[in-house]
Amino acid sequence: MTTPTRPLTTAAGGPLIRDLQAALPEGRVIIDADVAHSLSRDQAAGAPAGEPAAIVRARSTDEVRRVVEVCLRHRIPVVPRGAGTGLSGGANAIDGCVVLSLEAMSQILEINPLERLAVVQPGVVNDDLRAAVAEHGLWYPPDPASSPWSTLGGNVATNAGGVCCVKYGVTREYVLELEVVTGSAEVVRIGHRTAKGVAGYDLVSLLVGSEGTLGVVTEITVRLRTLPGAPITVAGFFPSLVAAGTAVRAVGAAGITPSALELMDRFCMRAVDEWKQMGLTAAGEILLLARIDDPEPTGTALAEAIVEHFRASGASWAERSTDPDEAEALFAARRLAYPALERLGPVITEDVCVPKDHVPEMLARIEALAAQHGVQIANIAHAGDGNLHPLIIGPPDDDAVLWRRINAAFDDILDAALSLGGTITGEHGVGLLKRGGLVHELSPTVMGLHRAIKAALDPAGILNPGKIFE
Amino acid sequence: MTTPTRPLTTAAGGPLIRDLQAALPEGRVIIDADVAHSLSRDQAAGAPAGEPAAIVRARSTDEVRRVVEVCLRHRIPVVPRGAGTGLSGGANAIDGCVVLSLEAMSQILEINPLERLAVVQPGVVNDDLRAAVAEHGLWYPPDPASSPWSTLGGNVATNAGGVCCVKYGVTREYVLELEVVTGSAEVVRIGHRTAKGVAGYDLVSLLVGSEGTLGVVTEITVRLRTLPGAPITVAGFFPSLVAAGTAVRAVGAAGITPSALELMDRFCMRAVDEWKQMGLTAAGEILLLARIDDPEPTGTALAEAIVEHFRASGASWAERSTDPDEAEALFAARRLAYPALERLGPVITEDVCVPKDHVPEMLARIEALAAQHGVQIANIAHAGDGNLHPLIIGPPDDDAVLWRRINAAFDDILDAALSLGGTITGEHGVGLLKRGGLVHELSPTVMGLHRAIKAALDPAGILNPGKIFE
Repeated sequence: MTTPTRPLTTAAGGPLIRDLQAALPEGRVIIDADVAHSLSRDQAAGAPAGEPAAIVRARSTDEVRRVVEVCLRHRIPVVPRGAGTGLSGGANAIDGCVVLSLEAMSQILEINPLERLAVVQPGVVNDDLRAAVAEHGLWYPPDPASSPWSTLGGNVATNAGGVCCVKYGVTREYVLELEVVTGSAEVVRIGHRTAKGVAGYDLVSLLVGSEGTLGVVTEITVRLRTLPGAPITVAGFFPSLVAAGTAVRAVGAAGITPSALELMDRFCMRAVDEWKQMGLTAAGEILLLARIDDPEPTGTALAEAIVEHFRASGASWAERSTDPDEAEALFAARRLAYPALERLGPVITEDVCVPKDHVPEMLARIEALAAQHGVQIANIAHAGDGNLHPLIIGPPDDDAVLWRRINAAFDDILDAALSLGGTITGEHGVGLLKRGGLVHELSPTVMGLHRAIKAALDPAGILNPGKIFE
Repeated sequence: MTTPTRPLTTAAGGPLIRDLQAALPEGRVIIDADVAHSLSRDQAAGAPAGEPAAIVRARSTDEVRRVVEVCLRHRIPVVPRGAGTGLSGGANAIDGCVVLSLEAMSQILEINPLERLAVVQPGVVNDDLRAAVAEHGLWYPPDPASSPWSTLGGNVATNAGGVCCVKYGVTREYVLELEVVTGSAEVVRIGHRTAKGVAGYDLVSLLVGSEGTLGVVTEITVRLRTLPGAPITVAGFFPSLVAAGTAVRAVGAAGITPSALELMDRFCMRAVDEWKQMGLTAAGEILLLARIDDPEPTGTALAEAIVEHFRASGASWAERSTDPDEAEALFAARRLAYPALERLGPVITEDVCVPKDHVPEMLARIEALAAQHGVQIANIAHAGDGNLHPLIIGPPDDDAVLWRRINAAFDDILDAALSLGGTITGEHGVGLLKRGGLVHELSPTVMGLHRAIKAALDPAGILNPGKIFE
């Protein structure tokens, strides 16, 4: 039995809590206000979060089913939650909801080298799965920047991307089968363990990226690949965002598919330097990092070609790294950019994706919008697939005027991406932050299809309501 | 104006036909019985087909929308149709329906080398797209055996697979964006042209493989890859199906991913020999064909490894082909197997897919079931991904006793695949032939989700009703 030091106001002793406690083993239902608040939001700065009625830490599929069953009876929203590393508010609590944490369901159930698949519970951390399958010479590619902390359940809910997706695709392309608790509190298995399968509608792809609004994922079967060999890294420093964007387009136009093509601007490098003293800022304005994992001699030939494209696009310096430690340090700096910026204030993360042809233009528009609205925008990007993360630096205090300017810049960046044939979200999802943007991207008829599907799979509307669309 | 020599009985002069003719340009509505019958079924032997009220050959998205609008008003089923090469009855007419042919919408609208995508109308033939993009050094991988005839629209409707899918994935992995006419006669665009995108539910994946039951696809944007280099072919002859299956498993267990790994049994080889005198039968009982398209020197090393695995698994002969013409002739023989068998009588095509580990066992069970039911079963297979096509040879005449045995064997093969953790259909779809099998594979709750989604996207139930499920 938990001993709440300060129980949630709406919760203690109510019929919902009594029913949850009766349906679950002792210790699963948490109504301590401090714990609850710490589990009531993800990492999306600026997204609202309500006060839950309770937190439940489920330990099995049947416990998840029981939680949904009780909530269905009480018509209470269920907000599923992994590690809470999301950046769109998708896991933020709704007033009076039950936050359903899947973090304790963290077992790797099977690793099958012959079928090249793994079966995991939703609370397994991405990097833990990678490490476990690497012992068998296998690889789970999707690698969001949150991979040391984020869970497979959260990765599935948001269809997480990452650095290597430019070559290897996103989470959806790796999910074979799911066990899901539906909005009607039924446990279903969808998809197939086989390499191929077309028996009925692709419910797996529908669930992947549905941000907890269509079902609670309780088991995941993922496809694995053979672990690639040691990569070659190419680094290039550029005098401007547009020059770097031109280099990205040139690599794409040459038909080269690196396994990473990342961008980081002076703002990010300075933040990393101030924190970790890596000396990046001295080298140039914009850093592009490419990784090639093709076997030799193709690998070296492609790396050399990238160096040439970087130089032809105006790089002040471009080289193929011959030192694996140096290459790893550069990628570590890229991963550190976001936490380094967070030390300066709240970071509002954009996640637009545009066609490769428009990467230079989109980067130019972001610069112009920063100047126009008088806000600071740093840029990191999975540049190779046109997925840009302009990071708007918020004020540490409650500066209402600045927040208004930030929100205006945020919306204008979404509109700029749409006007260039892009999307408002490449990999972070809609959550709460981009509901407004979504109705600019999708037609009213397509929004209607979303509502119809939501009603079909969650007739009572209790699964993470209000996320993606109102 | 069409001049029917023999009009369809239910059609001529009725209000449906009058409304269709009023809504469409002259010549689109066909009520000639001979033409209608020729367009009333796909190539699924044994699947029932009804008599349509009319055929419409649409030439634009707006014409498709008008057809659906008229049919919606009259509550008449619409059966979309490409080239009619399907093998499950998915395009078979329903009594009184409108068969909506998309074959005349056959323009390639865009080939974009930088973004590596193409935009096509649904009637574009698979091989025509391949040829057109090859001029830009690009490649559209999904390669069903029907690729010289089948259309992209049909490929999307069935989520078509093919020979190279063992390495490069199926149709769904290549569809970026769709234009679709919904069951409410509205034109929607779903998906995105960008490399990544998570704005809302993945409606594209839901439509792909939905066999015309959720919408009529009127435009398709597909992802392309760089054209691979010349492949290396490995051929091996085996004394038994189980030995060949063991070789397939050994290649998978070694972590090798060939770009094709095809199986063909003595029955098929004999049929090809009798037709084309290729001399295959003299060489052995079972032929395995592998193709490797990795760049050198990796390619040769992998090809040599496959030769060794073939020999260690009991191949009577296994070699890496040094003659491209010889290699192409072997793959041509593989493609000819199905039409060669059709010369002997109706061919009932199975399409089960099992985990790689169970390929030998599944092949053994198919042999046993052929003996048990006293039917002839030939085997071709995309063996590398466990996708087996046992081909049951039907009688040329209406032998009711033999048809009963064939149907029993058909059902038992589906059950065997399910009992080995497989699926009833790897790439051909459910259509009419496997509706019975589907309810063995999916739970009643999952079937309920299918019905709910169908009702959400096609409220009037006019889009290809009765296909996939009743």
